Amino acid sequence: MNKFYEKYISYKTRIDERLFNFIEKEHPKSLYEPLKYILSGGGKRIRPMLVLFCCEAVGGKFEDALDASIAMEILHNFTLVHDDIMDNADTRRGMETIHKKWDTSIAILAGDELIGLAYKSLLNTPAGDIREISKSFTDGIIEVCEGQSFDKEFEERRDVRLDEYLMMIEKKTSMLLVTCAEIGALIGNAPSETINSLKKYAGSIGLAFQIQDDMLDITADEKEFGKKIGGDLVEGKKTYLLLKAMELVNKPEDKAKIDFIIGNNGLKTRDEEAIGEIKRIYEEYGVIKDAHEAVEKYTTLAENYLNVLKNSEAKEMLVWFSRMLLGRSY
Amino acid sequence: MNKFYEKYISYKTRIDERLFNFIEKEHPKSLYEPLKYILSGGGKRIRPMLVLFCCEAVGGKFEDALDASIAMEILHNFTLVHDDIMDNADTRRGMETIHKKWDTSIAILAGDELIGLAYKSLLNTPAGDIREISKSFTDGIIEVCEGQSFDKEFEERRDVRLDEYLMMIEKKTSMLLVTCAEIGALIGNAPSETINSLKKYAGSIGLAFQIQDDMLDITADEKEFGKKIGGDLVEGKKTYLLLKAMELVNKPEDKAKIDFIIGNNGLKTRDEEAIGEIKRIYEEYGVIKDAHEAVEKYTTLAENYLNVLKNSEAKEMLVWFSRMLLGRSY
Repeated sequence: MNKFYEKYISYKTRIDERLFNFIEKEHPKSLYEPLKYILSGGGKRIRPMLVLFCCEAVGGKFEDALDASIAMEILHNFTLVHDDIMDNADTRRGMETIHKKWDTSIAILAGDELIGLAYKSLLNTPAGDIREISKSFTDGIIEVCEGQSFDKEFEERRDVRLDEYLMMIEKKTSMLLVTCAEIGALIGNAPSETINSLKKYAGSIGLAFQIQDDMLDITADEKEFGKKIGGDLVEGKKTYLLLKAMELVNKPEDKAKIDFIIGNNGLKTRDEEAIGEIKRIYEEYGVIKDAHEAVEKYTTLAENYLNVLKNSEAKEMLVWFSRMLLGRSY
Repeated sequence: MNKFYEKYISYKTRIDERLFNFIEKEHPKSLYEPLKYILSGGGKRIRPMLVLFCCEAVGGKFEDALDASIAMEILHNFTLVHDDIMDNADTRRGMETIHKKWDTSIAILAGDELIGLAYKSLLNTPAGDIREISKSFTDGIIEVCEGQSFDKEFEERRDVRLDEYLMMIEKKTSMLLVTCAEIGALIGNAPSETINSLKKYAGSIGLAFQIQDDMLDITADEKEFGKKIGGDLVEGKKTYLLLKAMELVNKPEDKAKIDFIIGNNGLKTRDEEAIGEIKRIYEEYGVIKDAHEAVEKYTTLAENYLNVLKNSEAKEMLVWFSRMLLGRSY
């Protein structure tokens, strides 16, 4: 186990502990039971980690950033609970979703309360300008709602462009990571140039991460992936790959196959032959190569944004962390 | 038109203007259209008014409290949008509800975004300790979620006690008013004794208002009321009157009638004879008299809490305001 992974695990323990103890109340049971259930559900704790590492990387203290780091994880859980209602998802991280295990009203209220609890933790932050920190946090919420709204709008549209998709994932996936970086840096009282670079670092990781996620759905080894490939095609998700293919495909018979996925809102059933055909199209037109290059581009960009930082163990931690997220090394 | 009403109207114009201009964005349309729709929907603007009057009553400035006052109205609208989903309500203030006019996902997201927008406005507040102001605001959100959760739990229970009901409406109805008073006073940099008295003033108004609302459902003149009396009995709402009747009724035939409403979750249909019978029971056992006295008690309490304030036009405004809310004078 290398020293970075060791540090990650030790921070994860602190985060999990703090989250576990954060909710002291028991009543109303219909509110606090689902909240305890969701917050103890695990996960990689990527967002709180990013707050802590960014704070340390600008010379701030771990202890000063802990409340804010928990706040970001609670906020992230709010997005999961409400998104799962909208997506009608039955499970998440192998656990039943709240609206499924309880009901929709309870899930709506649990999500709302998570926003309140997130601010409650954030407002205990002892360092940095609390107004600026809270503003950043609030912008994060607003953009995430916008991202989710665009995502829902795109589900209904057949003419979504790749640039629109990238704008949407910047809001839906990258924004909370950007908020984590900004808040961590604000707590560490970083100068604005450093804050901006760390925000760009986090935003680039978000894009790389999402495009890689889209790519794995078709290129992954099913055993390693833990699920069948092509799920996005079955569901008709407008991924980076599908939208790039729409741009590039020119043979009528190939175009018809892409158009079918878009027009039909997905294959609906797991048609292995059709999935194989789309994979062939993705390879033939260089869609996978393009996606791979985009991941590389954003990953390199992200690391370059760290050049603004003085060399330190915390800076190395950020490099390790983004590589770990993108599955490069542990 | 008296000078208080005149002031109320002039403040209302400022509040409506500010709310109308608060949302500048247009996209995503599925988010910003419903938001503009709900925020321009009118209403008495009770909560922002309370922020402004409390700020002025402790010597603070109207301009300093305006952003926070809008924040409270936006937050109030968040509770309406999400409660309407849970209550399956089709209309509100004579307008279609968001989940009805659009859909549930859009209503969930609109409510979430309203919380973000509320903080956005709040965090522009130029006076007072922004951390304390934000903490008060956050506590308001948390308690309102708890209140709504208790309300939902009580719908399923047959043994709700009157004291539990009062605890629930303190959270669901009074708490946001208490938050308004606290934030207004914090912006005016009031000493803690004054802040506490204003919070109790607002909390008492909330209780008086809710009990009066429960009472009007059975005692109102239908023409003035604008709707049929007895609606709460049809729906089986566990009101102050019904729970007080459960405590007091002792004749078996009367007890059976109350038990039927509780056990059946309401009359379900508008049975005029049954409504008349319950009204007779309410009168015979002194339930209406008791509710009337409770309204008087909380109204008097509220006004007494204002004794901590120096005499001023703003203080008179608060007296006028609570009387206006309780329909005493205009």
